[in-house]
Amino acid sequence: MTDSPAIARQLYEALATGDGPALDALLDPAFRGVLADGMPFGAGGGHDGADAMRRDGWAVIGRHFAARAEPERFTALEDGRLLVTGRYGGRGRHGGGPLDAAFAHVLSIAHGRVTALEQYTDTARWERAASPFSTLALQVVDGVATVRLDRPDRGNAIDPAMTRDLAEVATRLREDDAVRAVLLAGNGPMFTAGGDLALLSGLPADELPRVLRRMIDDYHLALARLSALDAPIVAAVHGAAAGGGLGMVHVADIVIASEEATFALGYGGIGLTSDGGNTWYLPRLVGMRRAQELFLLNHRFSAAEALEWGLVTRVVPAADVEAEAGAVVARLAAGPTRAFGGMRRLLRQSLETGLRDQLAAEQDLIVEACTTPDAAEGLAAFIGKRRPQFTGHRSRETP
Amino acid sequence: MTDSPAIARQLYEALATGDGPALDALLDPAFRGVLADGMPFGAGGGHDGADAMRRDGWAVIGRHFAARAEPERFTALEDGRLLVTGRYGGRGRHGGGPLDAAFAHVLSIAHGRVTALEQYTDTARWERAASPFSTLALQVVDGVATVRLDRPDRGNAIDPAMTRDLAEVATRLREDDAVRAVLLAGNGPMFTAGGDLALLSGLPADELPRVLRRMIDDYHLALARLSALDAPIVAAVHGAAAGGGLGMVHVADIVIASEEATFALGYGGIGLTSDGGNTWYLPRLVGMRRAQELFLLNHRFSAAEALEWGLVTRVVPAADVEAEAGAVVARLAAGPTRAFGGMRRLLRQSLETGLRDQLAAEQDLIVEACTTPDAAEGLAAFIGKRRPQFTGHRSRETP
Amino acid sequence: MTDSPAIARQLYEALATGDGPALDALLDPAFRGVLADGMPFGAGGGHDGADAMRRDGWAVIGRHFAARAEPERFTALEDGRLLVTGRYGGRGRHGGGPLDAAFAHVLSIAHGRVTALEQYTDTARWERAASPFSTLALQVVDGVATVRLDRPDRGNAIDPAMTRDLAEVATRLREDDAVRAVLLAGNGPMFTAGGDLALLSGLPADELPRVLRRMIDDYHLALARLSALDAPIVAAVHGAAAGGGLGMVHVADIVIASEEATFALGYGGIGLTSDGGNTWYLPRLVGMRRAQELFLLNHRFSAAEALEWGLVTRVVPAADVEAEAGAVVARLAAGPTRAFGGMRRLLRQSLETGLRDQLAAEQDLIVEACTTPDAAEGLAAFIGKRRPQFTGHRSRETP
Repeated sequence: MTDSPAIARQLYEALATGDGPALDALLDPAFRGVLADGMPFGAGGGHDGADAMRRDGWAVIGRHFAARAEPERFTALEDGRLLVTGRYGGRGRHGGGPLDAAFAHVLSIAHGRVTALEQYTDTARWERAASPFSTLALQVVDGVATVRLDRPDRGNAIDPAMTRDLAEVATRLREDDAVRAVLLAGNGPMFTAGGDLALLSGLPADELPRVLRRMIDDYHLALARLSALDAPIVAAVHGAAAGGGLGMVHVADIVIASEEATFALGYGGIGLTSDGGNTWYLPRLVGMRRAQELFLLNHRFSAAEALEWGLVTRVVPAADVEAEAGAVVARLAAGPTRAFGGMRRLLRQSLETGLRDQLAAEQDLIVEACTTPDAAEGLAAFIGKRRPQFTGHRSRETP
Repeated sequence: MTDSPAIARQLYEALATGDGPALDALLDPAFRGVLADGMPFGAGGGHDGADAMRRDGWAVIGRHFAARAEPERFTALEDGRLLVTGRYGGRGRHGGGPLDAAFAHVLSIAHGRVTALEQYTDTARWERAASPFSTLALQVVDGVATVRLDRPDRGNAIDPAMTRDLAEVATRLREDDAVRAVLLAGNGPMFTAGGDLALLSGLPADELPRVLRRMIDDYHLALARLSALDAPIVAAVHGAAAGGGLGMVHVADIVIASEEATFALGYGGIGLTSDGGNTWYLPRLVGMRRAQELFLLNHRFSAAEALEWGLVTRVVPAADVEAEAGAVVARLAAGPTRAFGGMRRLLRQSLETGLRDQLAAEQDLIVEACTTPDAAEGLAAFIGKRRPQFTGHRSRETP
Repeated sequence: MTDSPAIARQLYEALATGDGPALDALLDPAFRGVLADGMPFGAGGGHDGADAMRRDGWAVIGRHFAARAEPERFTALEDGRLLVTGRYGGRGRHGGGPLDAAFAHVLSIAHGRVTALEQYTDTARWERAASPFSTLALQVVDGVATVRLDRPDRGNAIDPAMTRDLAEVATRLREDDAVRAVLLAGNGPMFTAGGDLALLSGLPADELPRVLRRMIDDYHLALARLSALDAPIVAAVHGAAAGGGLGMVHVADIVIASEEATFALGYGGIGLTSDGGNTWYLPRLVGMRRAQELFLLNHRFSAAEALEWGLVTRVVPAADVEAEAGAVVARLAAGPTRAFGGMRRLLRQSLETGLRDQLAAEQDLIVEACTTPDAAEGLAAFIGKRRPQFTGHRSRETP
């Protein structure tokens, strides 16, 4: 009994370093953990067995937070249990905030092993530190917003949570004037496998239409909103991009693809049609004949073909994709953001607009652009034969 | 006189085998034939001379029917003539039905030669067995509808009869759920020379506008209807495709062209503008600059150029065009027909639709598609890692 | 004093031959010239100093007129001055008419030098002989209208005068049935540098929007009107074409570019968006991916790239641009002008029109075209296996 604090310290150390074998030795197989109900991402509640606790409790927390429990005080309880109080410190992994939350753990220790743990903590603080996103990470640094799909073990397949996250991300980008360029990328072996077919095929037949329609509600809203940003979008594509996931390639202005990336529509193989704007963008990007062949004969195609046909902007070695995309997006983030927004709007509407209307829109937007601080700077730099310093500000009055 | 039945038998044998020298020997040069007035394709009525009978009677019948007269009974008439009764058997050559019609022939025979023949037969049965088409052949086998232009001696030039036939064919394909893919091809030395300029230039100036307008009524209706089918269309192009005839290339989803095929617009050379959708499809397929050059400078261009520019999907040696096109159309006929129809509709409307409307249409059609038997089969096959077996059926209820 | 007429004669000779050294010797440095107020192109009024007179008076006249003063009578005045009367003969340089205008000059001569000159002349005649255009030249010869931008020392930069001139030129071409093809070209080192940034950057901030909007009013009107001509347009591009000036490349049907020509959008560098139809034409000509890259990354690109991407029709050595463009425009001027107009209208509207509407428009225009004299000639020539002789006439009644 007297070595309980020592065993507890070993447990905190093993959790902090992710030391699996040490946990194996420390946890009783019949271990029962109870995490505070309000813990985010469904980690709260009881977990029966060491494996369940590690899989459904600590691993879930670890995926979403880079956090560490710092024990401060060890107090033996009358019933033989051990009370540990201290603070959690760290931060959310996916663009969330810093974490600083007090805890009290009640540990049961027997025969040198931990048999139970009850967690009490300030779950509102965890909530605030958590990223609002469970399927992707969002970070905004130096005017560059990086959106990174993060279901690596599922090939970043698009499920209802991801479509909700994308709709929310697109809305935040739209409302954040500090965002001057956007990078779309994916964690894990591929950019995205497209719709989560394992999920869709597992649904009862009478739920499939409703679930699919709701997913597409969010996804198409996200794509339309991304396409309407002032900030230009760069996509960094590695591994594979398929099906509806190609929509995130289509809405980008500049697409940097890995030499090894492959592309496929896939709908024909599963008796479906199209989503993600594939039927709108592909004829405009790769031409109608190619689009017809891709849809009907359902070829997989290479990055080299995607480049030749006009789906991607540049192809680079796999190892250089992130660096190249990062350089381009940084350059765009230093550009005249409002003028870029005007160009993006004009190009987007171009293919649905007649010449006269487009000329009128060009006139309105260039006259509007000429009153921005960036235009004043651009013209002055041109005459002064120097490089302009753009700010992306909306007007001279509100820098 | 007594050898009349023997001579008659020789005549039926020569007609059945197409034995020209035997007919030369059997028919009196002054032979007069009278075919039943109701015989289809204008073969009926009197034909003076053996040559006229062979050219305007039997050859016309032979072009449209694979038929044979089976004599059953030979009866000498009082006036010395011979009555032969029997039945015609066979079928229409161009997608028509089976033929089984009784006949009575009255033959005049003199000096070992046939000098006259009167035909009585059930012409309504011939009518039914005839193809409804005089300028093309339609066959539907294993889900593949083959439409083969059949004015080989006129380069499959498009005349009013062909535009009527095409409008009728397009309507039949639209209404026949058994059709899961369409092959467009041409008999003779070329796919099609385009509008029949010999016919147009021979019209009185005041009839030309009316005739041209009526032809285009039918032709454009046919093209619009073909473009709206669920069934994908493959075009097999050999020899040449020109002018308005390119419309049949444009409406195809997959175009297999012979290495030796050539293409031309031709309008500029004759002071005309465009038809067959050339001004709609060409900018979308080959790009605006190329389209402007082709229209104004009126170049003939090669299959290799057509491939590079995006007018055709694949170029193969002349000898392989039919086999390649046949393989592609068979593969498409085994696909998810209703999903293909959705893709085709979406791609067709894409270039006249804004992004938001197209996204909404994609959503509606994919949710609709996900309820078809082919989607259920496709998802099940995907999860089961097996090849799907699609049926093209419209819904689970009505297989 | 008695040698005044001799000195005056030397002056007229030096002016006629453009003999700079002789003028140096003849003009007193303190020379004061007063040209008639109504002289066109702002040459009228007082000019203090020999340099000012030569630069702002005679040089301006010389740029716009190939004219010569022919003195007829020399009369000494009481105050010692010399009255010279005679006539100006010659013509406007830029498509203006012949010049024949009387003049009276009052010359002051002292110490062998001319110290003053007052000009009186029939300025209405000068006005009529002047080209209506100050920034370009228009000539119509053998059905070919040549429009040549003529601000060579400013890289044919587009200023308000040029946009006015272009709007007027486009209107004249629209109303002149003799025009059967148009050549757009530029004098000096380049086709056009685009908008006159020196001018725009020199404007007060509160005038810039108004001036830019007015320039674009005229420029976009000119482009829309050019795109609606029956006569096909050939652009001959040498040196460089940039920014809004690319609009004159876009409206052409056939673009002949020099191997050394370069192209650039430029807007991104100065914080502006687009004009001249760049956002309408570029996605249609070079594809959306390329257009996005050009707008956002603002690359300069070569004639070879412009050819590969579809912005220009042909690239030839710099020395051959004029000859090649001249040959193409002459060939087009011999074509069926009204049918060309139909093709141009159909192609222009194609990318803003649905298939059914476009098919209906094709039908209407080809039926209209078949009643023109050029169609009758074209069909007759086709049947007669001879080359057609087109006139471009509108109808059989009004040749």
